[in-house]
Amino acid sequence: MKEGSKGKILQKGARIIHLKGYNNTGIQEILDAARVPKGSFYNYFKSKEDFGLQVIDFFVDHFDEVSKGILEDASIPPLKRIEKTLDQYMGLFKSMDYSCGCPIGNLSQEMGDLSPIFRERLRRALDLIAEKYAMVLREAQGAGEIPGNLDVMEAAYFIVSSWHGALVHMKVVKGPGPLENHKKFIFERVLRP
Amino acid sequence: MKEGSKGKILQKGARIIHLKGYNNTGIQEILDAARVPKGSFYNYFKSKEDFGLQVIDFFVDHFDEVSKGILEDASIPPLKRIEKTLDQYMGLFKSMDYSCGCPIGNLSQEMGDLSPIFRERLRRALDLIAEKYAMVLREAQGAGEIPGNLDVMEAAYFIVSSWHGALVHMKVVKGPGPLENHKKFIFERVLRP
Repeated sequence: MKEGSKGKILQKGARIIHLKGYNNTGIQEILDAARVPKGSFYNYFKSKEDFGLQVIDFFVDHFDEVSKGILEDASIPPLKRIEKTLDQYMGLFKSMDYSCGCPIGNLSQEMGDLSPIFRERLRRALDLIAEKYAMVLREAQGAGEIPGNLDVMEAAYFIVSSWHGALVHMKVVKGPGPLENHKKFIFERVLRP
Repeated sequence: MKEGSKGKILQKGARIIHLKGYNNTGIQEILDAARVPKGSFYNYFKSKEDFGLQVIDFFVDHFDEVSKGILEDASIPPLKRIEKTLDQYMGLFKSMDYSCGCPIGNLSQEMGDLSPIFRERLRRALDLIAEKYAMVLREAQGAGEIPGNLDVMEAAYFIVSSWHGALVHMKVVKGPGPLENHKKFIFERVLRP
């Protein structure tokens, strides 16, 4: 976690953008939440856009930490790691009253059409996340846990994109249903031997 | 399609919201696009919120028309109708350079946390869309096209939510990949006998 004023701005700003979206969030609001003076924003960020791109990196770093703790834990059987990751996020969203969703998914939806520079950064983020899942699926395939003829990269992208869709529905349903349904279909249909 | 000034405002407004989001769209911008004077907006809509809710109904009516033309066409085998529906939307998004995504999904993502009244309207919209797919899956089950033990309502929600996720990724990838991947996994894994 980044320290100091820059870290505070990123943390508070990420939280507000996570809830309200990028275009719907003003710099002043972020500075008020982080309790830092306006001047310091421009010490750390060239523009609101530059800040938004660094927020994407901030969220990717967060997923990377979760991934290191679970998806890359070789002491757990591969498929179990994916299940644990989904369960961990389901617990997180429960604690957040099923709000917000995935910040990378949200920003993809909001900014995908509006900014080529956001799009490029988000595409890299989605690739990185899917790659982590594909790595685990490759191990699962080696261990005979999933069908040998499954294209693990395609399956990884499908797990991530359908998860993003489930999170969109979760925000409307305000309950765990869409996430549980996602997990059920991924494990009982998509990945079953 | 609604006629007159109200219809024009809804059509133009729906298009702008589809591209830019609800909070990021101003009433003036909609009126300029529809070429109607400001006064007439408040003849038809109590507020921007009231307008937004009617935009949701406008999009649901659009899906309903597509559904009547394909999903409810008893002359086509049930699964083929779902495939044709996905293909029709894929053609639509191709013609839009893979932009915008599903307006119901977008508004769910954007407004799910911000407004209980939007949430309720969107939840009804998602239920209605899933119900249409469930109806076809029920027929597919009767015809032995999909497994008899598949819960068609759960499967319908999964098809819709994972489609919304695929559309989010489409906006970043700017190509058909995520939609093709969705279709592949729905037909080859989720629904296969």
